[in-house]
Amino acid sequence: MPQIVIVMGSDADLPVLEQAFAVLRSFPVIWEARVISAHRTPEAALEFARGARAGGVQVIIAAAGKAAHLAGALAASTTLPVIGVPISTPGLGGLDALLATVQMPSGVPVATVAIDGAKNAALLALQIVGLGDARVAARLVEERQHLAEEVGSKDKAIREHYCSTAETEQGGPA
Amino acid sequence: MPQIVIVMGSDADLPVLEQAFAVLRSFPVIWEARVISAHRTPEAALEFARGARAGGVQVIIAAAGKAAHLAGALAASTTLPVIGVPISTPGLGGLDALLATVQMPSGVPVATVAIDGAKNAALLALQIVGLGDARVAARLVEERQHLAEEVGSKDKAIREHYCSTAETEQGGPA
Amino acid sequence: MPQIVIVMGSDADLPVLEQAFAVLRSFPVIWEARVISAHRTPEAALEFARGARAGGVQVIIAAAGKAAHLAGALAASTTLPVIGVPISTPGLGGLDALLATVQMPSGVPVATVAIDGAKNAALLALQIVGLGDARVAARLVEERQHLAEEVGSKDKAIREHYCSTAETEQGGPA
Amino acid sequence: MPQIVIVMGSDADLPVLEQAFAVLRSFPVIWEARVISAHRTPEAALEFARGARAGGVQVIIAAAGKAAHLAGALAASTTLPVIGVPISTPGLGGLDALLATVQMPSGVPVATVAIDGAKNAALLALQIVGLGDARVAARLVEERQHLAEEVGSKDKAIREHYCSTAETEQGGPA
Amino acid sequence: MPQIVIVMGSDADLPVLEQAFAVLRSFPVIWEARVISAHRTPEAALEFARGARAGGVQVIIAAAGKAAHLAGALAASTTLPVIGVPISTPGLGGLDALLATVQMPSGVPVATVAIDGAKNAALLALQIVGLGDARVAARLVEERQHLAEEVGSKDKAIREHYCSTAETEQGGPA
Amino acid sequence: MPQIVIVMGSDADLPVLEQAFAVLRSFPVIWEARVISAHRTPEAALEFARGARAGGVQVIIAAAGKAAHLAGALAASTTLPVIGVPISTPGLGGLDALLATVQMPSGVPVATVAIDGAKNAALLALQIVGLGDARVAARLVEERQHLAEEVGSKDKAIREHYCSTAETEQGGPA
Amino acid sequence: MPQIVIVMGSDADLPVLEQAFAVLRSFPVIWEARVISAHRTPEAALEFARGARAGGVQVIIAAAGKAAHLAGALAASTTLPVIGVPISTPGLGGLDALLATVQMPSGVPVATVAIDGAKNAALLALQIVGLGDARVAARLVEERQHLAEEVGSKDKAIREHYCSTAETEQGGPA
Amino acid sequence: MPQIVIVMGSDADLPVLEQAFAVLRSFPVIWEARVISAHRTPEAALEFARGARAGGVQVIIAAAGKAAHLAGALAASTTLPVIGVPISTPGLGGLDALLATVQMPSGVPVATVAIDGAKNAALLALQIVGLGDARVAARLVEERQHLAEEVGSKDKAIREHYCSTAETEQGGPA
Repeated sequence: MPQIVIVMGSDADLPVLEQAFAVLRSFPVIWEARVISAHRTPEAALEFARGARAGGVQVIIAAAGKAAHLAGALAASTTLPVIGVPISTPGLGGLDALLATVQMPSGVPVATVAIDGAKNAALLALQIVGLGDARVAARLVEERQHLAEEVGSKDKAIREHYCSTAETEQGGPA
Repeated sequence: MPQIVIVMGSDADLPVLEQAFAVLRSFPVIWEARVISAHRTPEAALEFARGARAGGVQVIIAAAGKAAHLAGALAASTTLPVIGVPISTPGLGGLDALLATVQMPSGVPVATVAIDGAKNAALLALQIVGLGDARVAARLVEERQHLAEEVGSKDKAIREHYCSTAETEQGGPA
Repeated sequence: MPQIVIVMGSDADLPVLEQAFAVLRSFPVIWEARVISAHRTPEAALEFARGARAGGVQVIIAAAGKAAHLAGALAASTTLPVIGVPISTPGLGGLDALLATVQMPSGVPVATVAIDGAKNAALLALQIVGLGDARVAARLVEERQHLAEEVGSKDKAIREHYCSTAETEQGGPA
Repeated sequence: MPQIVIVMGSDADLPVLEQAFAVLRSFPVIWEARVISAHRTPEAALEFARGARAGGVQVIIAAAGKAAHLAGALAASTTLPVIGVPISTPGLGGLDALLATVQMPSGVPVATVAIDGAKNAALLALQIVGLGDARVAARLVEERQHLAEEVGSKDKAIREHYCSTAETEQGGPA
Repeated sequence: MPQIVIVMGSDADLPVLEQAFAVLRSFPVIWEARVISAHRTPEAALEFARGARAGGVQVIIAAAGKAAHLAGALAASTTLPVIGVPISTPGLGGLDALLATVQMPSGVPVATVAIDGAKNAALLALQIVGLGDARVAARLVEERQHLAEEVGSKDKAIREHYCSTAETEQGGPA
Repeated sequence: MPQIVIVMGSDADLPVLEQAFAVLRSFPVIWEARVISAHRTPEAALEFARGARAGGVQVIIAAAGKAAHLAGALAASTTLPVIGVPISTPGLGGLDALLATVQMPSGVPVATVAIDGAKNAALLALQIVGLGDARVAARLVEERQHLAEEVGSKDKAIREHYCSTAETEQGGPA
Repeated sequence: MPQIVIVMGSDADLPVLEQAFAVLRSFPVIWEARVISAHRTPEAALEFARGARAGGVQVIIAAAGKAAHLAGALAASTTLPVIGVPISTPGLGGLDALLATVQMPSGVPVATVAIDGAKNAALLALQIVGLGDARVAARLVEERQHLAEEVGSKDKAIREHYCSTAETEQGGPA
Repeated sequence: MPQIVIVMGSDADLPVLEQAFAVLRSFPVIWEARVISAHRTPEAALEFARGARAGGVQVIIAAAGKAAHLAGALAASTTLPVIGVPISTPGLGGLDALLATVQMPSGVPVATVAIDGAKNAALLALQIVGLGDARVAARLVEERQHLAEEVGSKDKAIREHYCSTAETEQGGPA
């Protein structure tokens, strides 16, 4: 009974999605990954989307490239929130996947994140799940604090080394 | 038992599609127009595409705008040729619809024509039908000759009026 | 104590957002609209985002054009889900707002909908609220059925008028 | 007497077209590949296109990059269906070839597939040939089923390894 | 025996080309305008290009929109300089015509000017003709001086009215 | 002896630049507007840029459209800060002017503002002048406070009218 | 008390910014580099920008990629000049960062330089500082002369080797 | 006394321009290459352009990247034909250089060739020179015939190996 399901259009998308798995692994949620193609297995897509709510799913993440219809195809058959991750391919750099994911017609939204933004898709899914789960919500706040502290440490290190005084006094940065 | 079915994602696309109807009306083929939405009526889309070949359909034309999934969604459930017409909307000028229609993944092609290219979609459908129907094929050749003659007449008219000699002799173009 | 807050960067965005208000008015939720600018009132933005969860807000919708930072600025100071609506302006047609909204860095997601997609932003917010509110979830399912029925009626009407048989028998479409 | 002719504008396009050859080799059709350039051998292009129908050709596939005129040039001199494959080049990533292939003027359609979409061009050609050849049509249905089964197998494998339960129980994915 | 021939793909391009005619009318050159379509009258295009040099033509200007092949098609059959004018259409704003005109493959150049840049096409043709015709060359220098003087006059007028002093002294600009 | 000079490539740019004049009129600075074209009066451009510093100019604002070289051409002949305003034209919506202004090579910077961003160009010029002029700096702070207050008032008005409670109680927004 | 502060959104931007540091090191100015993220440390960004003028800062350089809000976020809380450096990422090549940096709304300008244009950002900051510091201004003039001399030397070398005469006489270029 | 001068904005462009040199070396013309920067040596650019006609130059080729002003800057100070070669850089793939080169304002044309199209720039220059030089014109016709023969040979080779018959008979292509 997964709360979050990550669907990819092709297993070629696995390397990008590893960033999402890494996030989900560190949170107290039940999730699973699937390979379902809007174009190669349209009936599996329909069946999965139609049954998702009854199966306990709360949020669907769908990742696809090029004419990326997967998120939209799933969103068409459920009223659960569907998060779309446009996957980049060489050439157009993911602009095709971005537009095919985000420019949905009125009535059927897809919550689109950045091109190859699998980590943010996982965080967004957790923010949604966290509305009804205090443990998840608290972990997200911690995660943000951790991010801020990391930036703070780097700021301290760089500020000391990359400045006119340091370089004059110390003979330049390391 | 239509040979050619034109499917539009929304009746807002009718003005663009009139150009296709006008072409089809002048050819000896059986056709019909439908409104089916990949996102608002996904099951109707699936059902239509699955049954099209058995119902005698030879070619499907699908027109949609923005994240234009309609052609791809139909192509996913039939091995009949599916022609996609990206419909322009203000703002991105149809680039979103073009990429969402043409950038199909390996295995499921969509025969894409120009943005708002409904007339060419109809002609392409007729070229395909014409492979097995000599009357249609012959009419297409006539149509091309007619096009060429039109250009030829315009060339004659413009050549006479827009040139240095004409202007010197006649005191300028009309 | 609004559950959903729609923030716009400028009151010039009101016409686009009316589509979101219209959706929210037909659902049993508490909502309000605000004008807060990431660039002109950065402290108000920070203060609102920081206090939103404690104030009972569940989802924030943020609409802005050009270098559209509003959604990202709010998302930076809350772990509530933030939905971004890129607003189009003449010239680049909203591509600038789309990229400035969706291409968020790792750690701070924005759930982006289509350019000028205010109606879908409201529906996505309701889908999220509906995870914890059965009445909202049920209304969303009804809304989808209504959409499908509308498409079905239009299909029936168009199919009868735009086809070779009708035109032969009836002397052309109305 | 080939049924399908693949024309490339330059032999530099061979690596992309190998994907089309691989498809055609597994189908009971007669095909051949040619090098004809719209710009370097315009008369050969004209002559080939004009004679194609009489020579028994049913479908032409034309692949070219940059200002990709080849498909359009051939389509201008035949009423056979012409499928265009835009070939990507570094820099613009094939956007130039896509627009030069798909944005054909009224009267002369080109059935455009994805950038570098040679495999889909072959499948589309076979779908067209299949309208009059039951063996080809049947093989295309098998091919689709094969595609779906492949996705199904991958789904099974990934679903078992990438999920919260598997990772807890098995100590993470392989 | 025109020295410069302006070829348009469609008489719909006449309004843009009027700017070129206006320039040519004020120079001592022999010119004429034609309507020839690369796609609708490919043989006329071939025949015209092949015979142009022998017919005394020195420079060809070719204007076309969308998948603008006209300039390239003519350039393919002559070694005379061919100037391409990409014509804008709504939607993509002429980007398609620009790329289809300028991105020519090695061996067959097209001298491309700005989108809708018909006036500059005429001037460029005259600069080329002027290499062998001192009267034309001299008129071009005069034309430039005239341009510079116009800018100079406007500079004087605007400088007097739009400045802090003028506004203080005169109570603001007119 | 103007401190700020606004140079436009053509007086067609006046409507956009009026927004800059309006800002400058409300500040205690000496300014003037000029028409100088990088392409039609290249020597005037060179002469102006070379003499600007000696003439007391502190900041140059340069506005131009299409292949907008004006800001770059002036920056090439002075080490004063040059602010570039890309002017939009129909079709490409100012993308050409933006890229031609901002993508300067190493060694010669142009401080580029938004497409048609004349008001911001004036404010940026004043921010630079304000570094050495406390009155200007103080006025800029006031201007920002004024902007924030305007947003604040609008927020108050909209919040009262566009919300679920107001609509229930008052029978909908005005 | 740095006069110029370079802020980067992530230490991943260090390689690009090294070009800016190299310029600043050769000028008599006080500067320092910081890591502050508009999205991960929004309060640090606000606090830094608010206090910058009082802390003696004259110019801020802000570098960020993707939905690059950093420069805009800092500019929102100070009236000091803020220079934005859009950082490229694979895929969209920095177009997203450019638009998110440059397309600022009226009232809050960002002085944007080229994608990855860190060297020019440093030079622009020095041009601004140089308005009140004759030593810096003089060094900038020297730097330009140096640039011009470098180009002059290369011109001399290339002109001798790459020309028809040299090749005839010397048997081709080295 | 070169007839054709190739100017590059930076010696980094040499590898692309080698293709132009190779063409020019095989034709009976006098040419030379120069390094002149519109931004780093604006006076050298002005001086060269102004003196070019008197110095016997017939055509100028100018190659530059990014905000590629070089061709336009030279065209502004001469009425000789100026050919622009946009040089690609990573990221935007040369789109910036293309637009900055081709989108020239009315009155000052630049004959633009493809991104990195140095070979075609040389051929175009020779086509222009060839209008007054029968030897050059004759060599250009030969060159075209050579190109066509090359394509013809490749067509023969590929046609034999890549076709259904060959593969059946010979056991597949080499």
